[in-house]
Amino acid sequence: MSASPTSSELSAYCLDLARRARTASRLLATASGKRKNDALLMAAAHLGDAQEVLAANEKDLAAAGEFGLSAAQIDRLRLTPQRLHEVIRGIREVAALPDPVGQVRSSSVRPNGLEVHKVGVPLGVLLFIYESRPNVTVDAAALSIKSGNAIILRGGREAMHTNRALHRLLTYSLRQCDLPEDAVQLVETPDRAAVGHLLKMNDLIDLVIPRGGEALIRRVAEEARMPVLKHYKGICHVFVEKSADFDRAERIVLNAKCQRPGVCNAMECLLVEEPIAAAFLPRAAAVLRQRGVELRGCPQTCRLVPEAIPARAEDFDTEFLDLVLSIKIVADLDAAVAHINRHGSGHTDAIITNDLSAARRFTAAVDSAAVMVNASTRFHDGQEMGLGAEIGISTDKFHARGPCGLLELTSYKYIVYGEGHVRGE
Amino acid sequence: MSASPTSSELSAYCLDLARRARTASRLLATASGKRKNDALLMAAAHLGDAQEVLAANEKDLAAAGEFGLSAAQIDRLRLTPQRLHEVIRGIREVAALPDPVGQVRSSSVRPNGLEVHKVGVPLGVLLFIYESRPNVTVDAAALSIKSGNAIILRGGREAMHTNRALHRLLTYSLRQCDLPEDAVQLVETPDRAAVGHLLKMNDLIDLVIPRGGEALIRRVAEEARMPVLKHYKGICHVFVEKSADFDRAERIVLNAKCQRPGVCNAMECLLVEEPIAAAFLPRAAAVLRQRGVELRGCPQTCRLVPEAIPARAEDFDTEFLDLVLSIKIVADLDAAVAHINRHGSGHTDAIITNDLSAARRFTAAVDSAAVMVNASTRFHDGQEMGLGAEIGISTDKFHARGPCGLLELTSYKYIVYGEGHVRGE
Repeated sequence: MSASPTSSELSAYCLDLARRARTASRLLATASGKRKNDALLMAAAHLGDAQEVLAANEKDLAAAGEFGLSAAQIDRLRLTPQRLHEVIRGIREVAALPDPVGQVRSSSVRPNGLEVHKVGVPLGVLLFIYESRPNVTVDAAALSIKSGNAIILRGGREAMHTNRALHRLLTYSLRQCDLPEDAVQLVETPDRAAVGHLLKMNDLIDLVIPRGGEALIRRVAEEARMPVLKHYKGICHVFVEKSADFDRAERIVLNAKCQRPGVCNAMECLLVEEPIAAAFLPRAAAVLRQRGVELRGCPQTCRLVPEAIPARAEDFDTEFLDLVLSIKIVADLDAAVAHINRHGSGHTDAIITNDLSAARRFTAAVDSAAVMVNASTRFHDGQEMGLGAEIGISTDKFHARGPCGLLELTSYKYIVYGEGHVRGE
Repeated sequence: MSASPTSSELSAYCLDLARRARTASRLLATASGKRKNDALLMAAAHLGDAQEVLAANEKDLAAAGEFGLSAAQIDRLRLTPQRLHEVIRGIREVAALPDPVGQVRSSSVRPNGLEVHKVGVPLGVLLFIYESRPNVTVDAAALSIKSGNAIILRGGREAMHTNRALHRLLTYSLRQCDLPEDAVQLVETPDRAAVGHLLKMNDLIDLVIPRGGEALIRRVAEEARMPVLKHYKGICHVFVEKSADFDRAERIVLNAKCQRPGVCNAMECLLVEEPIAAAFLPRAAAVLRQRGVELRGCPQTCRLVPEAIPARAEDFDTEFLDLVLSIKIVADLDAAVAHINRHGSGHTDAIITNDLSAARRFTAAVDSAAVMVNASTRFHDGQEMGLGAEIGISTDKFHARGPCGLLELTSYKYIVYGEGHVRGE
């Protein structure tokens, strides 16, 4: 299509793309696991010798200045042989996972002999909207192919050359394995209105998955006519309960805050139970400060920790994604739970405790996708939790919650076998 | 509230109702299974001696003329001691089902010793919009209480007296068992705008379940800001494949069409494979005509079956809900599948066959919530499929598909136990 299409050209382009994805999804839904794996392994093999992809990536990097990307963003855009190697390993891992399509999830025989099987099926067509990291292009396509779904990829315009090269490689691999190349579609126009058109096509697209900043996700959730799999942000808490082992608590607090502060499952707020605050907080604060963490405390915290600056009210509702931590001393477990359910984002929250009853009360009452007991919030991740590669994390309660991998990209149907069964009154 | 509230009064009324439901849902979410069952059994006991409910139902029946109800609608509105007995049995069955909340759905131990449990949790607040049958009021409330969800009931205005009496009895039982009575709310105003207000409250209501005519469901799906659990209609097919046993096929065709023609899982269209059409269709048509079924056939059918009248194109897209059947002769299994995926509603479709390969191809390719092999479409039902009582059937692929009972009214969270685990690079 042309560089600056009219609205009706754009609409026609998007409709054609979604229709081709729908047709391809019907074919992919009944493709054998063998064939899907062959296509994935072929893509992995080609990526191992992908001069074309690296050259395209160079073009994107050369143009990065035009888009005003920060150094961190340019780094995320860059494909190195090492990163390609990780992408290849990712594809191979997806290929090695069991096929979720046709898998019998549960099964029963009724007293009248009717056999009822609940069997995995693909959702249909996915729309994936994401930002600059080009490795995500391949991860998402691999999960989609394996789960029998067609996917429409909408990456950032700053990664367009790289995404085009990766897309060519993926569709080539599909074609070589007699699978429909339309099963992986790339939105090639940089025009932002394209997303608006696609979000209205609920007859052709079954699910949209936005991954990026909160503003992007809110816009998608607002406009989409189809279900959205999402989390807005991760305001994750660690609550140090009064029976906690201090060494353990300190290790987990450090890990949750510092191991990778820029991700959604990093801790943003530390809650400490009042009776142990004077003993625990100064030592924890010292090691956090050593690691360069800025501490923003409630008034009581500031009295115990001279290095802390006073937290403003909004600090307890902020996803810092940085070496910044809000700290609050709470009267008891109920107060911690109340704070988390009010200020948290339903993503990941942890309790450090040696008290069984406290652990059980906390895990039952905290209304988040993952609740950790004596473990770092950083473990909320499909690979770490043994679910395999994920396309994102959901904080919604409908359909899928937590890490979304192959299982969460499928639905099911009931297949019922009888021997001429008819229903009585 | 007053009989004709202003829009802002109505909005405030709905907001208050939804907020109270939200607060109650938090309490109900952690209530013990024992307490929830006690409340259900107490409601069942009170219904056994429910003069108040029967008297209220008499009032509704006396006013039925004002609403212009048909004889069939008045019959559905009527509560008899026999129907109350069925309602009571239904509550007891729900009480006897396992509690879906806190149930561990899957569990694994990671190589590093981290224990990952996937545990059932309630969705939160349900909005249930339905038409005149008052037994549905109790069924829905029972499923909701048992699954730990608060529910907002919006019944038909022609059943308002009955629903008020049932609602009083349900909230009384909740209160007596120390559960929040706000967990079951009744929208008491007949004003239709109330539904519009509630459908916008996606912060307070987690799921809406409309049950009724297609127009109602489309309106709800269009306006709702929260997920909708629904099926628009049931255009169900029976495909008689060329290897089918004719006696068996005839028995199933009769059952699927005639046993209860007014329900969503009744057959609306019969497909017959061409090679057996001349042998099978005349005998099947004869018994269907004996049972008073009007036959609307494709041209080829009309040549074989003189009693059939020519079908119009729209007959193949119509849910008759009556003793009317469309009939089409198809070239082969692929043509049957193509017809079903195009004209069906993704609800229930059956194949009658003795050919294993045909059964496997049909069940894999038909994209419907339930696919039957040698069994009547009438078996697509929560009780018949062993899933327990249902609040409705879903033809969507997101979250739940097919019969929706206790499991489908819940979500899950991950609870992860460690022993001081931190994440490495």
